[in-house]
Amino acid sequence: VSRPVCFLSDYGVADEFAGVCRAVMACLAPHVRVIDLTHGVPRQDVLAGALLLRSTLAYTPAQAVHLAVVDPGVGGGRRPLALRSADDRLFVGPDNGLLILAAEAAGGIVTAVHLTRRELWLSPLSHTFDGRDIFAPVAARLAAGLTLTDAGTAIDPAHLVRLAPPPPRPAGDGVITTVLQVDGFGNVALNLTGGGPQVPGAVLELVVAGEAAPARLGETFTSVPAGEMVVFRDSAGLIALAVNGGSAAARLGLAAGAEVLLRPWREPAGP
Amino acid sequence: VSRPVCFLSDYGVADEFAGVCRAVMACLAPHVRVIDLTHGVPRQDVLAGALLLRSTLAYTPAQAVHLAVVDPGVGGGRRPLALRSADDRLFVGPDNGLLILAAEAAGGIVTAVHLTRRELWLSPLSHTFDGRDIFAPVAARLAAGLTLTDAGTAIDPAHLVRLAPPPPRPAGDGVITTVLQVDGFGNVALNLTGGGPQVPGAVLELVVAGEAAPARLGETFTSVPAGEMVVFRDSAGLIALAVNGGSAAARLGLAAGAEVLLRPWREPAGP
Amino acid sequence: VSRPVCFLSDYGVADEFAGVCRAVMACLAPHVRVIDLTHGVPRQDVLAGALLLRSTLAYTPAQAVHLAVVDPGVGGGRRPLALRSADDRLFVGPDNGLLILAAEAAGGIVTAVHLTRRELWLSPLSHTFDGRDIFAPVAARLAAGLTLTDAGTAIDPAHLVRLAPPPPRPAGDGVITTVLQVDGFGNVALNLTGGGPQVPGAVLELVVAGEAAPARLGETFTSVPAGEMVVFRDSAGLIALAVNGGSAAARLGLAAGAEVLLRPWREPAGP
Repeated sequence: VSRPVCFLSDYGVADEFAGVCRAVMACLAPHVRVIDLTHGVPRQDVLAGALLLRSTLAYTPAQAVHLAVVDPGVGGGRRPLALRSADDRLFVGPDNGLLILAAEAAGGIVTAVHLTRRELWLSPLSHTFDGRDIFAPVAARLAAGLTLTDAGTAIDPAHLVRLAPPPPRPAGDGVITTVLQVDGFGNVALNLTGGGPQVPGAVLELVVAGEAAPARLGETFTSVPAGEMVVFRDSAGLIALAVNGGSAAARLGLAAGAEVLLRPWREPAGP
Repeated sequence: VSRPVCFLSDYGVADEFAGVCRAVMACLAPHVRVIDLTHGVPRQDVLAGALLLRSTLAYTPAQAVHLAVVDPGVGGGRRPLALRSADDRLFVGPDNGLLILAAEAAGGIVTAVHLTRRELWLSPLSHTFDGRDIFAPVAARLAAGLTLTDAGTAIDPAHLVRLAPPPPRPAGDGVITTVLQVDGFGNVALNLTGGGPQVPGAVLELVVAGEAAPARLGETFTSVPAGEMVVFRDSAGLIALAVNGGSAAARLGLAAGAEVLLRPWREPAGP
Repeated sequence: VSRPVCFLSDYGVADEFAGVCRAVMACLAPHVRVIDLTHGVPRQDVLAGALLLRSTLAYTPAQAVHLAVVDPGVGGGRRPLALRSADDRLFVGPDNGLLILAAEAAGGIVTAVHLTRRELWLSPLSHTFDGRDIFAPVAARLAAGLTLTDAGTAIDPAHLVRLAPPPPRPAGDGVITTVLQVDGFGNVALNLTGGGPQVPGAVLELVVAGEAAPARLGETFTSVPAGEMVVFRDSAGLIALAVNGGSAAARLGLAAGAEVLLRPWREPAGP
């Protein structure tokens, strides 16, 4: 029996890159199901891709092959990689940190293989499109039953390239957070996970670039009146900002990487 | 035997939302075919989604499960819903009018079910992503053979939330119409269906915001010279405006919701 | 056994056009696999579509049915067409040159059929959406086993409409090339194929609109330092321009159809 392939990349949909990878997989593994998770990872943003791969993991089929390509180092010296996690998922992509957060969330890395068996790849190699030439072919063959260790040379997982999202840091009675992701609705996910008792409706202060704005704690967009800002736990488990019926990113001028200070609401000082 | 799923939403393709729903369906119903109809419904435009679901219905497989998500009220009180139409199609989505026009075009609503069986959903619920947590899981299970009435509580179809596109209204010797949809080529569909005898090549007058412009009746774009405006019956059966080799929406400054007066051409008065 | 369908168009993903064609194929050939190669061909750019169909051919399954729609003449007099190539691929689309470059690269056109059997099409015809009404239905039926010559009337391949990309032309000690394609990363493919001995690291001069800029020969983006321009052989075999970590198209102000002079580097003349 074959494994399904879940495919994530920064290829976008304007170009044919993702489609060509799908075609290559259909050549090598005609019966394998390919699920396009997204090709909208911000271009060359490895951390954004790694976070997305991790946050969507729980919604993908057991024993999937996760083909992930966000690869600013293509054509350079970075290694092509495949990993097996403790819960028997496989991850195929570049050794630049993209696969690690998800593989660790999937029980941890049990086996890491440097993809070196060139007879499994397309030939000739283009040097600029490893997604098509290396990663898609290997993912398709793994999905169709190839044994992971037959794809290359086992290496020590401790030596893989790793990425870490910046941690939140305390500041006075608040916390400085970093924007991890802005979605197409303008909702803003922060590098902060929820937990602990909270008071729905409580008012917080968000400070961006020295400007303070109020926001309410809530469960979802509609926990606040139209046009107001809510701080909630998003569907990936991260603390997030949204405007009911609007865009929090536009309101606050936020993009991935920006910093937001969250602190208790302060009454404006009297005159 | 399983039913195919036809999936329509306003999720766009920049985010992973549609892909995560596809992954969830692949988990719960690995053998079900999922056809992405479009994820380009204008954000939160329930009427545009309802019209599109209806206009594409005739081109989708018999006995399909139609998963449709345009859901500005997610997280609020609106009910999750599944319908069966007289021709045995199933429709899954929010109770905000999105499903009704199509279900009525499919022979009428025979059964309406308020989705209440939480053991069919994902857990925990996120409150902000019912497409992933409720609609996709229920659609997948229905496609794989779940009986509709086992998905929740039967309700009276008369009590469903309904949307009505504005009707055209007469004005002098013409008719005031509303723009229902602008496609990516700039073609403009109006809330007017064709029929009756027409004279190909006859000249009409279009009045937008007080400005009059001529257009010719025709069968298609190429019924008029390059650069000219044509009034035709579009592939969904609606009266539409197009410019041969150009954009009617850009030429007339039209977007969904705008009004256009159509009337017979008037010779400009002499001096 | 059925053939897979590889689907390429200029429909984009904002509209439902490609999805409706997928739905039509699922109606007529439920077991056929459809691979979306891309729907991002620049609108109505037949040459761009023809080049893309040809450059991706080697990555698609043997015996595929290639459904291709870039069709500015829809509704006019151009013929609907299906071709068989010497290596037993089938090509379905308009007779405007879109299919020819790929079919010739696939061993040459063995059979050409003017699609005339209306009982294979959808009915009624819309005159504006032959992709849905003619091409997708015929492609699906061919994929499911229909004999090509049963789809219409055999015609002489010599009488098909042909397109030719402009050839490069010599200019002094250089060559004037035309931009065939700009991808989403800003990489620029020229109407020039590689070959012959080259000196990696050699410096060339690119002249665009009278302005000269230096570039280095290399194997890939990362053959040059960050921010520098490289001239390389791209994954489709064309000579291409890229900036390591940037956009060559933005740097040089290039779009498809623009001209670029490539010549050996000249030391600036002394004062």
